[in-house]
Amino acid sequence: MTSDWGDQVLVVGTGLIGTSIGLAATAAGATVWLTDADPGRARLAQSLGAGRAERPPGAVDIAVAAVTPAATGAVVSGLLASEVSAVVTHTCSVQAQPQREVEQLAPESSGFLGSHPIAGREVTGPAAARADLFHDRAWVLCPTEYTSPTTLASMTGFVASCGAHPIVMSAAEHDEALARTSHVPQLVASALAAGLLRAQPQRVALAGSGLRDTTRLAESSPQMWGEIVAANAAAVAAGLREVAEPLLALADTLSRDDEGAAAAVIGLVQRGREGRRLLPGKHGGAAVPLASVSVVVSDEPGTFARLFADVAADGVNVEDFRVEHAHGQPLGVVELLVAPADTSRLVRALEARGWDAAGD
Amino acid sequence: MTSDWGDQVLVVGTGLIGTSIGLAATAAGATVWLTDADPGRARLAQSLGAGRAERPPGAVDIAVAAVTPAATGAVVSGLLASEVSAVVTHTCSVQAQPQREVEQLAPESSGFLGSHPIAGREVTGPAAARADLFHDRAWVLCPTEYTSPTTLASMTGFVASCGAHPIVMSAAEHDEALARTSHVPQLVASALAAGLLRAQPQRVALAGSGLRDTTRLAESSPQMWGEIVAANAAAVAAGLREVAEPLLALADTLSRDDEGAAAAVIGLVQRGREGRRLLPGKHGGAAVPLASVSVVVSDEPGTFARLFADVAADGVNVEDFRVEHAHGQPLGVVELLVAPADTSRLVRALEARGWDAAGD
Repeated sequence: MTSDWGDQVLVVGTGLIGTSIGLAATAAGATVWLTDADPGRARLAQSLGAGRAERPPGAVDIAVAAVTPAATGAVVSGLLASEVSAVVTHTCSVQAQPQREVEQLAPESSGFLGSHPIAGREVTGPAAARADLFHDRAWVLCPTEYTSPTTLASMTGFVASCGAHPIVMSAAEHDEALARTSHVPQLVASALAAGLLRAQPQRVALAGSGLRDTTRLAESSPQMWGEIVAANAAAVAAGLREVAEPLLALADTLSRDDEGAAAAVIGLVQRGREGRRLLPGKHGGAAVPLASVSVVVSDEPGTFARLFADVAADGVNVEDFRVEHAHGQPLGVVELLVAPADTSRLVRALEARGWDAAGD
Repeated sequence: MTSDWGDQVLVVGTGLIGTSIGLAATAAGATVWLTDADPGRARLAQSLGAGRAERPPGAVDIAVAAVTPAATGAVVSGLLASEVSAVVTHTCSVQAQPQREVEQLAPESSGFLGSHPIAGREVTGPAAARADLFHDRAWVLCPTEYTSPTTLASMTGFVASCGAHPIVMSAAEHDEALARTSHVPQLVASALAAGLLRAQPQRVALAGSGLRDTTRLAESSPQMWGEIVAANAAAVAAGLREVAEPLLALADTLSRDDEGAAAAVIGLVQRGREGRRLLPGKHGGAAVPLASVSVVVSDEPGTFARLFADVAADGVNVEDFRVEHAHGQPLGVVELLVAPADTSRLVRALEARGWDAAGD
């Protein structure tokens, strides 16, 4: 295979992202070489089909450092110095700090271009990798003032061959955006979950699904987040203040037992609604209003199969769904999100088939 | 029907909670009377099967004020003064403030017992009501020093007949617990979503599913939350400080570009993991570790039906599932959460049936 970027890739670091890149590039017809500080991990990635767990015999077209934030600058600089590849990139969740490190260790490199595929999972490691991890996701490219047009064109082609959409912005823009959309939400979720340690455990049992959603990110890896946040400290600090200061101001208003307390809460919740409308909708388009149909289900093998078979029999397209489990017994509620026009038809159809269903 | 609490209920306020109580009590064999400041809303609740949209002809056994937090104290006191029922309760998300109001307006009432069913939906109104809304949920009862044992026994029986688990605690305990598990998470989600208004809209498009989960609560009603938080101001203020102060302290550490930045983040994320483990697991039991199997799906009618039929054919019990939509095209990934022992069997079975599936 030849392509607009070549056909030989070296992936250094075969965790979730590196192995997924190996799988995606292999699927696109490239030859992929895999190395890792832990050779067993590279062999596991090879056994998953992500490439060959060997050093490349000669030069490659693109070298990808998919290593931890703290190691990124040094690994990229080493790859540039080795001249194993004309183009060297990385996949770090922060951009400005590795860029500064590379500029110190390998100044004015025309072949360097930091990048960040906006895809990931709460799980880590090669076994969690997927060839389609980047499918239709954004993949940010952050050229420096020295990055050559050829390097940018190669990376654009490579990213597209992995199924992703290249988006070009500066490292500073990237880091500021990711502070708001990823790093600060992570720390806020952790702080909220950490607050539960002060509560009596039997009182935490009163929590509903809202708290569970709000704190889902709190499951993430402490070590990884330590490195990411330390490498984006200024933007994250600013973002934390943007969230925490209004909360403290609200706490002060509430403590004064002010007449203005309700108005302050209404204003905050209203602004939150407006902010949330900015989030990308399904399929990256504008958010579409959906109606929900709730169905009571039992916790037995085959229940979901029967439900979705019955939904499909009526030809309704389910846009999304979620499960709320009942507290203390094997019953739950599946919430099906459908186009508002489909709601009443779906409720009637499900009821006719014996389900306990209700529209909003 | 006779029961340990009687068989006649008056529900004042036919929103989501009041109508659901009407449906649940009717299903349990009770006679339910429905009133609402908006008579059309009471008639809608009647048409849904929640009871009769009339004032009761004589005394009832239990009167339930299912009205807004701001109206609760006055409505309960009016019901007590009218002697329409020996037992008067309400369903407010806050307890201490209505309790104080009732004590002022109808002091030393042995028939008063505030309560709070821990159930609800982001949607509101009688049309969203469900007979099973309280099924196996906790329903908190907050007796005052004047509440009689008979009143408490009646309410315990009534709550059980609605399918819920009565849990007795003081109003102060309730409000402090709910501040942590519900009111503070709501405001934090709103503040996080409100922060997005400061970002460039095209940068917000880089958000992934983590931010969407963390801010889901931000969709809630500003007016309702204004009333709830104003009525629980002290506990919410304390809870907001518990979350916001560590975030500001972390921002300061990050701004000093301290060597301790990573350690501070690691500590916070670690405590967040520990706090999240306190959340009730599925079915109210201890949280059970689950493994995830990811399956690529297309966005066509019948896809979910085929998937769940294939899962069921293998006899694997899906404990939970979630959908991640791919950015920009009609493809997504369904994450099936199953017992870890079932993972590899399920992946093999799905792959044999032509699905693109991967375990963690």
